[in-house]
Amino acid sequence: MTALEIQAAAVREASRTLALASTETKNAALEAVAQALLLREEEVLAANAADLTAGLENGLKDAFLDRLALDHGRILGIVDGVRQVAALPDPIGAVLKTVTRPNGLVIEKRRVPLGVAGIIYEARPNVTVDAAVLCLKAGNAVLLRGGKEAFRSNQALANIMRDALTGVGLPADCVALVQDTNRESASEMMNLTAYLDVLIPRGGAGLIRAVTQNAHVPVIRTGEGVCHIYVHKEADLDMAADILYNAKCSRPSVCNAAETLLVDRAVAKDFLPLAVEKLGAKSVKLYGCPETCVILPQALPASAETWDTEYNDYILSVKVVGGPAEALAHIALHGTGHSEAIVTGEERTAVDFLNAVDAAAVYWNASTRFTDGYEFGLGAEIGISTQKLHARGPMGLEELTSSKYVVYGQGQVRE
Amino acid sequence: MTALEIQAAAVREASRTLALASTETKNAALEAVAQALLLREEEVLAANAADLTAGLENGLKDAFLDRLALDHGRILGIVDGVRQVAALPDPIGAVLKTVTRPNGLVIEKRRVPLGVAGIIYEARPNVTVDAAVLCLKAGNAVLLRGGKEAFRSNQALANIMRDALTGVGLPADCVALVQDTNRESASEMMNLTAYLDVLIPRGGAGLIRAVTQNAHVPVIRTGEGVCHIYVHKEADLDMAADILYNAKCSRPSVCNAAETLLVDRAVAKDFLPLAVEKLGAKSVKLYGCPETCVILPQALPASAETWDTEYNDYILSVKVVGGPAEALAHIALHGTGHSEAIVTGEERTAVDFLNAVDAAAVYWNASTRFTDGYEFGLGAEIGISTQKLHARGPMGLEELTSSKYVVYGQGQVRE
Repeated sequence: MTALEIQAAAVREASRTLALASTETKNAALEAVAQALLLREEEVLAANAADLTAGLENGLKDAFLDRLALDHGRILGIVDGVRQVAALPDPIGAVLKTVTRPNGLVIEKRRVPLGVAGIIYEARPNVTVDAAVLCLKAGNAVLLRGGKEAFRSNQALANIMRDALTGVGLPADCVALVQDTNRESASEMMNLTAYLDVLIPRGGAGLIRAVTQNAHVPVIRTGEGVCHIYVHKEADLDMAADILYNAKCSRPSVCNAAETLLVDRAVAKDFLPLAVEKLGAKSVKLYGCPETCVILPQALPASAETWDTEYNDYILSVKVVGGPAEALAHIALHGTGHSEAIVTGEERTAVDFLNAVDAAAVYWNASTRFTDGYEFGLGAEIGISTQKLHARGPMGLEELTSSKYVVYGQGQVRE
Repeated sequence: MTALEIQAAAVREASRTLALASTETKNAALEAVAQALLLREEEVLAANAADLTAGLENGLKDAFLDRLALDHGRILGIVDGVRQVAALPDPIGAVLKTVTRPNGLVIEKRRVPLGVAGIIYEARPNVTVDAAVLCLKAGNAVLLRGGKEAFRSNQALANIMRDALTGVGLPADCVALVQDTNRESASEMMNLTAYLDVLIPRGGAGLIRAVTQNAHVPVIRTGEGVCHIYVHKEADLDMAADILYNAKCSRPSVCNAAETLLVDRAVAKDFLPLAVEKLGAKSVKLYGCPETCVILPQALPASAETWDTEYNDYILSVKVVGGPAEALAHIALHGTGHSEAIVTGEERTAVDFLNAVDAAAVYWNASTRFTDGYEFGLGAEIGISTQKLHARGPMGLEELTSSKYVVYGQGQVRE
């Protein structure tokens, strides 16, 4: 066995104890994590300072260093997140259904933990705690593999969590941090089918693609978002401009931000100048179809890649369409199944759009930016699934569980 | 685009229409399939005869030819299965939950089809219809890839289903049969991530391993079953012998059959001879641990592979254990997460076992042979999932669906 296999086997073993832990024990563990983070803040900040120094020496960019950096405020934010998760209802143990069969067997479908979750992530050390506590609350042990630039910070955070677990009588190995941060360890982790029940990549599109392409452990794909705002001819154009501005500009770096505006030809001449006026506040750059470029001379001509590009920036693709059918066909071809919105005052058109669009979340007269575990009332979120198996859309605690059938007999045999 | 990509794209396109079809239309399609199978039985039997002739010429074994063969009775069985699926409730469209958020957004979680399912299977042509109609009822288009030995039969069955679909106004491409039956087409299909939402292999362990190892489309792993019967010292030994006999001998070729008996040392000397007497009716061959071999001289000594072997035959592995802890440890190490049973009269021990065992189905005083969609009351089954993501245990219509969030606003924007 390799070092990673030995570590993963220990996590799997710990998961058997954690799966049977009471809600009280799990909540006590989370509160112990919160307190230890506050008590041992200096240790975390010192490790983080060493990561930052090494990062500077290695010429990491400012944006990267900013994601990597921790300070008192960020630690308080992490602690607050831990306590929020502790306060959520425990999803484990709920009986999802019970049937009594004609032969007297009582069959109960019960919610149980997934077992062991693997998380592969990049530079943000807060993910180490955020992801781990969500897994723990849902009864799952977790094998964490963060980016090498944040290794010292992640190690300090993982040690604090492991000590807190031991303090409440749970195995330290309910949380483990992969010690090698080279590419080989990531590849090896993606194939630990004997020890991991699920793999959740958290990071940029490149990471997610690499994990999806290389893993044999089942993966939950998260976070690809080429989201559309479709402005129908019966839209309230002021509402549409507000929704578009919010969806594009309130936080362009995230996956639920809009990348493409589709607008009906019948209102394009009225709507596009209105939209541009709003978007001008953030100097949004535009790529448009030929008709758009006629109406908006400042728009640059769209290329073949335009409609499939997730900018994560103050850039918007704009296309004039003939009506709902063309909008739906465009979304079917270029959408990533994340979040799509229609703005219209016509109910029949809205209902058809809501039914026809194949995405995790479909909106009528609201911004796509609401696709989020907190905004949906799940209380927390480990990511937004853009696949259709297991979980779709914001993933909270319930999405980190599985089920099992428990069958009560009195000696029944078949046939 | 390759021929397979063109075909898969057509299936994906057809799935968009099917996803919006009413229950009445889907049921009409299934009834049309049932009627057409009866009307065009000769066509199916002629194609099947050609497959059988070719199989004989190619020296296929009798058991293989038996799985391949269709006759009037088997056709009637297939038709009956189609009508049973038509009679089941439609899972699509159900509203799983609705929340109204403080900002006025109404968020509805709605059950929707998965989209396109790929089925890779072996020699049984009945799977062509069984799997397709389950997918259709759940609103999914299906791309079928059967074994080359059954190609003519599968083609006849697929044509009948495609014509029936057209007859009720649905696209023929809701059902499509892959035309190449070489290895390359299977590999290519496993990577059609742009067109397939899920891949379900149906067949032997080799097929399932190959698909799990090679697919990038999300796979649902089904049907590996190293199932255990654990006879606790407080068991009713006659009941235990009946359950063991049923679990081993009622149909040894299937995945929910028992492969291993674990028996408490305290009752081994009493129970093993009783068990052997029952199992003798089917001349069950035994592989035992050293203690078993002392009690039962006819048992052969177990090897290192014994405890991980799925015999699918009248063969049983037997191990004497010290008690529940050793039984649980053995199952954790050697079980495949399918079905496990304890026989005991002691409630506390039973409850601990039911909680601790990590499997799709865990039984107290009943045979593992009940793990089945029909026996569980699901009405039908496309397979038994042994993974924890998406579906676990027998998969019926609901397990062939996904969900989406539909959000109703009045112009809401975030922050």
